[in-house]
Parts: sequence; C-alpha cells; structure tokens
Amino acid sequence: MELLKQKIRTAGVVLSDQVLKVDTFLNHQIDPLLMHQIGQEFARRFRDAGVTRILTLESSGIAPAVMAGLELGVPVVFARKHRSLILKDDLLTAQVYSFTKQVESTIAVAARYLSPSDRVLVIDDFLANGQAAKGLVSIIQQAGASVAGLGIVIEKSFQPGRAELEGMGLRIESLARIQSLEGGQVTFID
Amino acid sequence: MELLKQKIRTAGVVLSDQVLKVDTFLNHQIDPLLMHQIGQEFARRFRDAGVTRILTLESSGIAPAVMAGLELGVPVVFARKHRSLILKDDLLTAQVYSFTKQVESTIAVAARYLSPSDRVLVIDDFLANGQAAKGLVSIIQQAGASVAGLGIVIEKSFQPGRAELEGMGLRIESLARIQSLEGGQVTFID
Repeated sequence: MELLKQKIRTAGVVLSDQVLKVDTFLNHQIDPLLMHQIGQEFARRFRDAGVTRILTLESSGIAPAVMAGLELGVPVVFARKHRSLILKDDLLTAQVYSFTKQVESTIAVAARYLSPSDRVLVIDDFLANGQAAKGLVSIIQQAGASVAGLGIVIEKSFQPGRAELEGMGLRIESLARIQSLEGGQVTFID
Repeated sequence: MELLKQKIRTAGVVLSDQVLKVDTFLNHQIDPLLMHQIGQEFARRFRDAGVTRILTLESSGIAPAVMAGLELGVPVVFARKHRSLILKDDLLTAQVYSFTKQVESTIAVAARYLSPSDRVLVIDDFLANGQAAKGLVSIIQQAGASVAGLGIVIEKSFQPGRAELEGMGLRIESLARIQSLEGGQVTFID
C-alpha cells in the first residue's frame, strides 16, 4: 500500500535495526484518514474470505480493525491484555511474550464473542516475531472458529513471524513489508 | 442520540445500580457502524469548536475517537495506561483512579503530541466519577493547550463527573445520559 509506505518513510523513526517507531500515526497518535484507507485496503483483500468477525489486540490494533470492520460490515472484538473487574465471563486466553516490552502477558477474550461458525480475520498493527498473532489464532482455535487470515499493517519481514504463521497454513496480507531497518533506513519488499 | 439509546436498551446489561455493561458494542466487542455514527454525531456537535486534535484514553475510547477524528479531519492521540519501552519520550502524566477496577493508574501522553496552540476535544466511552476525564484535562492543561470540550458516549448522570467538570467551565456533550440503573432498568434523561 503505497500511501502507507510513504507515511512510514516520512514519519517513521528507525530506533535500531530491530525497532521502527510509528507513534505519529499508528501507536500513540493516530491518523484517522490513513486508518480509513487501511481499513478499505484490508476489506478489498479479504472481501471474498467469508469474514464474519474481526479479532484484534488492544490498543494499537483497534483503529485499523474498526475501520476494516466498518468496510466489511462485521463486528470487531479486541482481546484485552489486562483483566477488568467487569469482565468476569468465561474467558479464552493465551500467553503472549512481547520482545519490545520484554514482558509476558495474558491476552483474553470473552468466550461468547467467538462461536464455532465464525470465520475470523485477525488484524494487528505489527507482525514481527508473531507472538501476538499466534496468541490471537490460538484463541480463535479454542473457540472452534476458523481463521480467515491475518491482516497486518506493518510487517518486519526480517523477523520470523510470517514464516511461522505461513507454516501453520495461514494467509497473511501485510500492507507494508519491511525488508530491513539497517543503517537507519527503511527498505521495503516490493 | 436515539440509535445509541436503543442499542443500550437492547444490548446493555445492568449489573448493579452503578454498573452498566456494554461489552457487546463498545468495551470489548465493537460495533463499527454504530461507532461511525457516533463519530458523525460528535463531529456535528463540535464542528464549530475549533478542534485541532482529539485526546482519548486506551482502550475503549479509541474507536469513537478515531471515528470523530475522521469526520472532523484531525489527528487522535490516545493516552496510555501502561508504559512501553518504546515510549521513552518526555511524558505528560496524570493519576486516574478507576472505581470500577479499584486501582489507581498513571496515564501518559508524549509531550510532543500536544502544543500550546492546540484546541483539544476529549472523547471517552463513559463519564461517571469523571476521574479519567479530569486526568485527560490535566494533561491538556500541562501542555498549555485549551480544552474544546468533552464528548462522552455514555454518561452516568447519577454520578458526580459532569457536575465537577462543568464546575471547571468545561462543555460536555454526552450522547446518552443515564438517569438511573435502579431495578435493573436503564432510565435516560431526555
């Protein structure tokens, strides 16, 4: 998605060979118009995938997921990283390790929001080591639902997430695929 | 906003005289079309308020805030409740006590996303005791920016948040105002 790549080139900050900061439009400040266009692009790619529901992870996945949900006309569920007193339902959970934050957390979804008849599109902001994506896929499988695919805003293709998920037979659509962050430069896979 | 009230009547669950659960369309599962309409309604009410930026709080504020930002054509910033290794900037912070979760947390915004020339619309999912709203207002004031107003999806009008914020001279627009949850019934203020 050319518009997204342009935004990453102009507004992304390469913090190291491993870390790209996109706080100005995705992870802290959000560009709503870009999110709308991202939602339209996910919808275009998954229009024929029979999606009945979208699953994402708080917080940075919510904006692109809701825009995709608007375009596809399906509800969005976001997994929570922290339990709330008000969320006392039957929970489906998975353990997710964040290499960026260096912490393991439990992500949780109320069981009643996923049913065996659901065909679920996973949306997330980043795909790197694939930990969050695998946690979300595990939750979908625990519910007996099927995975329609994974829609990723930014993929760090030099990390092993995509290969592992493809090894599980999953379809992955990433709107920007980064080959390398070396030398402070963002190089995309075309 | 009549459509929102209908949704609360049909999909909301009254857990006690104090707690309304709206997990099916706002706090865990999200109804993207309703969020879009909520964003349009916020934009209609604040169209002439000179809004340059929207500030909300992760996670449930993000969907309505991004839809309002799309309609008003302004960026959205979400305050974080938990610090990330990647967010090491100069931070503006406030302490927020959650009566629902019975915990105090620090909310934080990177200082560079609010400037003294900003006129900031605060969007949040609920207004009850006003703790989150006051924390967000404090962060805006620390930045030297001005508050355009507060846009709230659901106000529990029997709790003191609105009165305290109005006492600070702030404009509040709540799309559904709940007078009472007594007897398991949602009663709205017209």
